[in-house]
Formats: sequence, C-alpha cells, structure tokens
Amino acid sequence: MKLPDWTWLADYISPYQIYMYGIKKHLFSGKTDYQQVEIVDTFSFGRCLILDGKIQSARLDEELYHELLVHPAMGIHPAPRKIAVLGGGEGAVLRELFRYGQVDEVVMIDIDRKVVEMCREHLPEWHQGAFDDRRLELVFGDARRYIEETERKFDIIISDLTEPVDDGPSYLLYTTEFYQTLRQRLNPGGILAMQAGSFNPVQLEGFAAIRNTLNQFFKYVRPYHVFIPSFDADWGFILAANDQKCDPLSLSKADVDSLWARQPFRPECYDGETHQCIFAIPRHVRAAIDKEKRIISDGNPVFVN
Amino acid sequence: MKLPDWTWLADYISPYQIYMYGIKKHLFSGKTDYQQVEIVDTFSFGRCLILDGKIQSARLDEELYHELLVHPAMGIHPAPRKIAVLGGGEGAVLRELFRYGQVDEVVMIDIDRKVVEMCREHLPEWHQGAFDDRRLELVFGDARRYIEETERKFDIIISDLTEPVDDGPSYLLYTTEFYQTLRQRLNPGGILAMQAGSFNPVQLEGFAAIRNTLNQFFKYVRPYHVFIPSFDADWGFILAANDQKCDPLSLSKADVDSLWARQPFRPECYDGETHQCIFAIPRHVRAAIDKEKRIISDGNPVFVN
Amino acid sequence: MKLPDWTWLADYISPYQIYMYGIKKHLFSGKTDYQQVEIVDTFSFGRCLILDGKIQSARLDEELYHELLVHPAMGIHPAPRKIAVLGGGEGAVLRELFRYGQVDEVVMIDIDRKVVEMCREHLPEWHQGAFDDRRLELVFGDARRYIEETERKFDIIISDLTEPVDDGPSYLLYTTEFYQTLRQRLNPGGILAMQAGSFNPVQLEGFAAIRNTLNQFFKYVRPYHVFIPSFDADWGFILAANDQKCDPLSLSKADVDSLWARQPFRPECYDGETHQCIFAIPRHVRAAIDKEKRIISDGNPVFVN
Amino acid sequence: MKLPDWTWLADYISPYQIYMYGIKKHLFSGKTDYQQVEIVDTFSFGRCLILDGKIQSARLDEELYHELLVHPAMGIHPAPRKIAVLGGGEGAVLRELFRYGQVDEVVMIDIDRKVVEMCREHLPEWHQGAFDDRRLELVFGDARRYIEETERKFDIIISDLTEPVDDGPSYLLYTTEFYQTLRQRLNPGGILAMQAGSFNPVQLEGFAAIRNTLNQFFKYVRPYHVFIPSFDADWGFILAANDQKCDPLSLSKADVDSLWARQPFRPECYDGETHQCIFAIPRHVRAAIDKEKRIISDGNPVFVN
Repeated sequence: MKLPDWTWLADYISPYQIYMYGIKKHLFSGKTDYQQVEIVDTFSFGRCLILDGKIQSARLDEELYHELLVHPAMGIHPAPRKIAVLGGGEGAVLRELFRYGQVDEVVMIDIDRKVVEMCREHLPEWHQGAFDDRRLELVFGDARRYIEETERKFDIIISDLTEPVDDGPSYLLYTTEFYQTLRQRLNPGGILAMQAGSFNPVQLEGFAAIRNTLNQFFKYVRPYHVFIPSFDADWGFILAANDQKCDPLSLSKADVDSLWARQPFRPECYDGETHQCIFAIPRHVRAAIDKEKRIISDGNPVFVN
Repeated sequence: MKLPDWTWLADYISPYQIYMYGIKKHLFSGKTDYQQVEIVDTFSFGRCLILDGKIQSARLDEELYHELLVHPAMGIHPAPRKIAVLGGGEGAVLRELFRYGQVDEVVMIDIDRKVVEMCREHLPEWHQGAFDDRRLELVFGDARRYIEETERKFDIIISDLTEPVDDGPSYLLYTTEFYQTLRQRLNPGGILAMQAGSFNPVQLEGFAAIRNTLNQFFKYVRPYHVFIPSFDADWGFILAANDQKCDPLSLSKADVDSLWARQPFRPECYDGETHQCIFAIPRHVRAAIDKEKRIISDGNPVFVN
Repeated sequence: MKLPDWTWLADYISPYQIYMYGIKKHLFSGKTDYQQVEIVDTFSFGRCLILDGKIQSARLDEELYHELLVHPAMGIHPAPRKIAVLGGGEGAVLRELFRYGQVDEVVMIDIDRKVVEMCREHLPEWHQGAFDDRRLELVFGDARRYIEETERKFDIIISDLTEPVDDGPSYLLYTTEFYQTLRQRLNPGGILAMQAGSFNPVQLEGFAAIRNTLNQFFKYVRPYHVFIPSFDADWGFILAANDQKCDPLSLSKADVDSLWARQPFRPECYDGETHQCIFAIPRHVRAAIDKEKRIISDGNPVFVN
Repeated sequence: MKLPDWTWLADYISPYQIYMYGIKKHLFSGKTDYQQVEIVDTFSFGRCLILDGKIQSARLDEELYHELLVHPAMGIHPAPRKIAVLGGGEGAVLRELFRYGQVDEVVMIDIDRKVVEMCREHLPEWHQGAFDDRRLELVFGDARRYIEETERKFDIIISDLTEPVDDGPSYLLYTTEFYQTLRQRLNPGGILAMQAGSFNPVQLEGFAAIRNTLNQFFKYVRPYHVFIPSFDADWGFILAANDQKCDPLSLSKADVDSLWARQPFRPECYDGETHQCIFAIPRHVRAAIDKEKRIISDGNPVFVN
C-alpha cells in the first residue's frame, strides 16, 4: 500500500474520530482576516477548498452539492429573476444560477475577498468564468449587514455559508433576528434555499435548530439531504417558502422531471427520482430532528463542533 | 481537546484515506480460522464488531442496519414462514425476524463458530437472546455449500455476509453460480434481501456488479440505500424477487405504513417515508451504477478494497 | 506498504506530535486502581508494557534500559547486599540484581499488585522467574510510605517509577521531602540509582528539576543517558551518592571494564566505553540542564506532559 | 489538548511506525528535477526542510547537526584551507566553515539548484548570508561527477548528502567506487567528515555498511553520534582520515577544549565533554555495527527505508 507523499489533511470530527486525507499538492495556505484557508489537491477527492479546517467543496462532488443547493429552489420558483447569494466564494452557485436564462441579476455577498480571489485563481472548474457574468454584482462584506441595510428584494436567496463555528465569520447568519430580516427581503412567492449542516442523525442538533428557527417565519420549511462523499456524510439542506406553490413536497416525481423542459439544460444530479429521495426523511432521522426544540438567536447562537 | 486513551482503530479506506476511531476498551482480539476479529468499545459508535478490519455493526446504529436488511422483505412478503440467514453472526437479524409471529423456522448458516460465540458473549444488545429461540436452527459451515446441498426451500433468504475481500470467507457467495442455486432454494413468491456494500458513488463497482449478477435470475432487483453513521457511508442493500407483488417499487408510502397494522410491533427506522427515501436513487448514483456492466462469476469474482 | 491490522497505539508527545505504532495483538487492557494498563505486541518493538499511555519497557530494548538502571550503581558499590527497588513491576530490575551473588536481600515496593500480576503472566522474558527468588521480599504499597515507615537501611536504592504525571501514582516520589527520607535509608556508602525521564534537550525540565532536588542531599549527583529506541529518545538516569568512591566520574574506561572480573556475568550493554559515553553530556544539554533552577517539593511537584 | 490546524507531516518510519507532526504553515511544496521538497513551519521543531519526506534539518536543532558535522574535522585538522562540501543545500555547513579565518576556499556541489534557491529564500537563519561569502564557489551538479573530474585537492571534504533512497539523487555517493576517488581528492592529512544516517541500533545497517566501505580507504574511520530531537533518533556521523594526528580518538577532553583557543568563536554544542560522549559508543551499538559485514558498491548500493 503506497502511502501519500507525507502530508495529510486531518478532519477532527471529534476528539475520538479523526479522518486523514493524503495531500498531493499544497496550492495555498494562509490566514485571511476571517478564516484559515487551504487549497490542496487530495488523492481522494481532487482539489479541495478548506476553510477553518472543514472541506467546503471538493472537485469530486462539488457539482452534486451546488446543484442540490440551487436547482430545487430555482426549479420550483415560477420566475426567478433576482437572486441573492450569501457566501458562496467558490463561484459555483453563480455558475449554476447563470444557466437560467430568466435570471436578471445576482448579488453575491461574501465577507472574504481573499477567499474569492483564491477561488478565482485555483478553482476554475468551480466558477467557470461566472465571476465575469455581467448579471453579477459582487459585494465584499458582511452578508447580515447587507441584508439588513439593503432595500432590494429577491425572488430567491441562497445561503451557502460556512458552518457556524465559534470564532468563525458566519454564526450570526443562522439566528432568529437574521431570518426575520431575511424574510422581509424576499419578494412574494420568494424562496430561501440553504445548506444547513450535517444530516447525520447523531450530529444534527445544528440542523434541527436551524429548521426550528426558520419555522417561525416560513410556512413550508422542507429539509432535504443527500450523501456527499467528500463530506463523508449525509448532508442537510433546507428550502423555505411561504407560498404553497413553492412547497417541494407538492411536486411529484414527474412534475420535477418536467421542470427542465423549459430550460436549455438538465442538472446532472437532480431529477424527479432524486427529488423523491432527498425530500423523504428516514423515520429515525425525523425522530432525531423533532427531539431538538432549540431556537437560535443572537444571544443564544448555535455552534457546531 | 481530550484525545482518547492511546489506542485507535484505523479504517484504511484507501492508501490516501485513513479514518481513526478512538478505542475506549478492547474486549476481544483474535484470529479465528476464517478472519481477524476485534470487539472494541469506541468513543464514537459504542461497541463494535470488526471483522478483517471493517466495522460490521456498531451499537450506535446496528438497529438501522438490521431493520433495513430485514423489514422491507418481511413486510412485503405475504406470509414469510421459512427463512434462511446467510452469515449474520451478531444475531441481530434473528432478533428482528423473531418479532414476526408467523415465522416458523429460521436456519442461520455462519462459517465462523468463534465469531458467533464472541457475539453471544459480548453483544447481548444485538441478539437479545435470539440464539435461544426454539425456531432457530444454527448451522456452522459454509453457506454456499449448505445452499447447494440442502433440499429445503425458503420464503425469504437474507444475506448478511461480510464484504468480498481477497482472502476472506465470503467472496464466492456473490457469484452467478451461487445466485443461480440460491434462486432455486426460494419458494414461489420468495425474496432475497441482502446487504450489498457501499453505495458511495465513487465506490460502487461492487454493488453494481452484484446488481447485474442478480438481474440474471430475478425480475425485480431493487437497490436501496441508507446513510449509516458508523460506516461513514451511504450503504447499499438489494431486494430481489420474481413475483410482481413483491416488488417494493409497487408500494406507496401509505402501503408501507399499513404493513405493520397486522404486526404487534413497529420498526424504529422503517416506515412509508423511509421506504420512499431508500428506494429512490439520486440521478448521479443511478448513472454510476448503470455504467458498470460486470457480472460476477466464480472464475471472475469481485473484491472490494 | 503493508499497514498493520487496524489498531494503533498513539503516543501523544504533544498536541502537535503524535507517534503511531501498529499493534499486532492486544494481550491486556484494563484500568487498575492506580493506572491504565495495556500490554500489547507491537510490530516495531515487540511486546510492550504501557502505563497511562507511556511505553514503560519494550521487548526490543528493555535489557538496555534495565542494565543501565542497575549496573552502574551495582558495579561501583564495593559490596551491595541489601537493595530496595521502588516500582519496577516488570521484574526486570530484579532479574539484573539477582545476577549478583553478593546480593542478600531485595525489597521491591510496587503500588500496583495488578500490574505485577499482569507482568508475571505476560512478560516472562522480563522477569525470567525473578519473582520466585527467595531473596526477594515483594511489598504491595506506596513506596513513599514504605520508605518513611521502615527502619531498614539499604546499600542501593533503585527507583524505577513511572514518570510524574498529573493523576498518576508517582509524582510524590520525586520531591525534596521524599529524597530527604530516602537518603536516611541508605547505609554509609549507599547509592541511589534512578530513571529520571527524558534527556531530550527540549524536554528536560523534569530531569533537571530532579537533579536539582537531589543535589540538596547528595554530594555526587551524576546524570547519565542513553538512546532508547522504543522511547524514541535519549533517556536520562541519575546516580546519586555521598561517598567519593562511588562517584562514577572517578572511574576510567578500564576501571569499568575490570568491574566484572569478579562477577560470573558481563552486561550486554554496559562496559567501559558505554560508561564513557553515557556519563559525558553534550554541551548544549548541559546548558539546558543548568538553566533549570527548580527544586521539587510536595507543595510544588513536577509533572511531565 | 489543542490539535494543530489540520495539516500534518507524516514520517513513515516503517509500515508500523508513523510519526505525525502538526504543520503551522506551508511555505513551499514542489517537485524539483531531483526530489520532492517541502518547507514547512512545524509546531514541534520550527521551520523544517523536508526532502523526499525526510526532515533534513530543523530550526530547533540544525545548529547541533551542522556543528557536529563540521567542527570535529575542522578542529582536529591543523590547517584546513581548502574545503569541499557535497550537498549541504541549506548553507549551514558553509556558515560554520566560514567562521574559520584560515579557510581560503570552499567548493560546494549540490545537484539541486531549486533546493538551494528555496533555502536561500526560506532558511535565512541557516545560511546567514554564507552564500555571499567571496570564498565560496557554488557548483550545481552531480557531486560524484565533480569529484571524479576535478583536479583540485582538498584538506577537508564534508559530505552532507541526503540518505541513499531508491529513486533519490545520492545513492551512488556512498559506494566503494566513489570513496576511492574521494580519497584521491584529499591532500595529505586530509579528512572526510560525513553524516552517515541513523545510529539507532535497530536501523544501522546503512551506517555500518558505510563504515565498512570507508575502512577500505582510510586507516582511521571513526563513527560518532548524537541524539537529534527533530530526527527522533541518535544520529550517526563518520570522520575518516589516514593521518594518525587526525584520529579523534587521540584527543582528550582537555585537548578538544583547547582547540578553540586559536579561534575567535566557540561552538555551542561541541567541546571536550561532547567529544568524549559522541566518540564513545555503547557496547550493544558496537555489537550491532560489527555484525554488519556489507561493503557498498555501485553494483550493490545500499538503500535506507
């Protein structure tokens, strides 16, 4: 068994669980104003963006992750024209959004200019030039402040933030106070789609608390999930809406398959059967989510790890 | 961060991917005639049975694994009375089977008497006394030879074998030759349910080849899958039948929920929504399975890792 | 590269330095009243006794360790008849002592009866039957209390204790208060020989503090050291005496070589050139030792790691 | 216990022994024409140069390593004016050499221009400007070919090469054929000083074979050794000479201490007592060296690991 050439990435799942990935090449290593950034080529997952020690996305399966974050919301919304993206530094959410001809404008707010620069340089397969699309307005700053101060409204808001970690830049973007404002920035019929952390039944307090917190402001809060190899985990997303027509549970397998008839492209990973799989939740996971009663607030934020 | 007290279990996913689990206590360590056996208490997953370096089942989620192996087949079969279990040394398949009053007899064939003895001693939560049920006939021997030589027929055969590894005891239980015989040991309307390895899209050549091989003998070969935390993976199962009434895709969510009306118990993890989730397969996984054309035979066996 | 069969011993040198040793077989794992004990067969060092996560001695080089602990003192003392051994549960210090015909009695005081039992069972190459020598008096109890309460006097006291760790059983056996009493239990011309921890220049605060503490009671406090493979370290010992004739620095290479003329055996690892090597200390290490001014007391104990 | 920020350096001592060092910062990672190069800041040893996975020298203790490579030879030679350095890319051998006023010229031959460039940039504490000394002639090329083709003669040749590994650039610089030529490039009274690999008694076949090979051409072949923390090992060097006046065993402790009277500096790590320690070899290590009879040749080279 040939071991890799001497450097390893360690993912500290817990003090008792450490996953080691062999590194083929280091492309970037540095501390920005907000977080520790590593861009490395791993043997197992290809190129990876790592923020504060957590793989954000990997060449192997970033398409799966980004498609599932974008297309369920974009597919179900009748006319998504104005979009906000919170975080999303890799540019892959943009890439998926700009496949839709009806999209007029996308505002992406990312706090970390350096991360975006590094992604533009080292992750061309992720953004595929999306940063140059004339429909993009790229804002460097705190997404919470932006949402609080802007007067714009959006058809869809996509939250592609890092997980809420202790010293990290994003834990105040998962609170009651923030979601209340966020909701007001949505046009009628608007949808929030977000990545919401691990869907592993023994680690989903965070996910469940986000779900509970969104329940205060949205009528249809729909968890969904898919196994993402480079996360070694079933991963959780949430689609939240107030218009019954935007409830994904109202769509049959055939409904979803027909959505892309009006588009010039088809997602690689998302179709009717995928929809059926990801929006159904095994009984023990439902039980674990329902056990968690916590609601997140600025004064009582949630942290993972 | 408090690290565990000095001994670790390493799961060599690949030369480039090593997962380390802290060990709290070693209960048994030894080589039987067939395999290396460890029974340890881990911090992350509780007690674990490890055969040839692979976690077979863990206290944390063995119920999920064993329910999904047993109940889809038992639920859909109209009158499962005679059952064969191939492997299954922990006794947890037996535990689930004996919950059904209509079961008359269960023959379990496991090659490794020592493993079964160790499981009886160290894994009481798994078997819960099932080895003492008077309906059980426990055979120590090669399950393939047993199936080839017996004249009995079964309503359901459950295959809970270790994965096919190079020097391991089970690789000849995944071949054309074996499945052909197996099919002849099923009563009309009979079902084969099996664990079939990783469902991770980058590691499912084995799963896909098993599916292909079964396709030769069964009309309804249905992959299903669930995320199992202690395997760090989406895990694959297959239900195979020839009677259209036993095709799980014919059951709606409500159909499945009503199955347990006639039983005195309800599974913890398996119900209608679980069914919907596990029998639906995301598009990219379907594509990966369909790419693999291999059929397994005695002369051309499949090995994982 | 063939990796070991799945379990590893981790030595946490520091949070940033972890050494992993493949385990071939677990022989014993348990918590006694005093410490965590593991006896394992490693690939690198053969069988090892591990107390509280630290390798105490390994089949590969226990002879080196125990010879260097015993023979410098036994060799230089003109007539060592009554010996006390503090700790030394493996029985290998006894084995070396009983090679000397003039030894009349050895009192060994070890706090942990269970460890001694496990060593008798699993480490036969260490003790080689020494526990059955009629000259041995084996006392289970706290060596400090024994030394404080006994009225016996000894020609040589050998301290083979575990390192002083926070919750461990031995940290009060490295203090001013203890050494003061210890000195009184030595006959005129008596010698204390001890293992005194890492001699690594960046980790020898503990060693240096022990040296300083002994300096209060002994005129000739002589550090010595040897590289011990299974410790991955240069390891420190101290010989302390008040009689100039027992100062090892007074012996030439030839003097040491002639010591074993009167004995029926020759040590494997210790001779005149070894003596010259181990009692000489490189300049940077001397500087590091001399920088440390600390004296250890019951109220201000020293801890390693 | 705070673990390091996610990347680790692994030193594969053997398939059963892996040492992990936390990395604070990656400074350089790349493949040159000759070897894999990493320059990293580790938590344990500070900055490190790593070639083909092996720490070459570390900020923590490079002074110890380079002093012991240079000063025993420079100290004992009566008038070292012309020096050749084989390898030595860090520039630290140069740094030590240029402290001697009588040195007229130093030719350093290193095969890997890129490594030298990286060292000049990232290891300023190592070279301290030595590359700019006007007495230096820096040659990029194969040291063996240089030695074979040059007509120059040297008072001292210092071999600071990487260890002989399978695909590495240096294994032909440890052979009979090379040492024969090397000897002819020494002036009368000349000395060869070299790093010669691990002095760990269980890993010194390489060291012993080098010693044997040098014995063919030099009358006084003197192994010496010191514990180097960042190598986790007792490390071996050899001083080889044909003039009895240059035999280090002829020097007493006091002789060595007086050597620096004529110099404007004193080594930090090397003095009379150090000399006594490093040139004396414990009995079991002598036995292990003497057991190895192998002589290295171009057709039968030695490889470590």
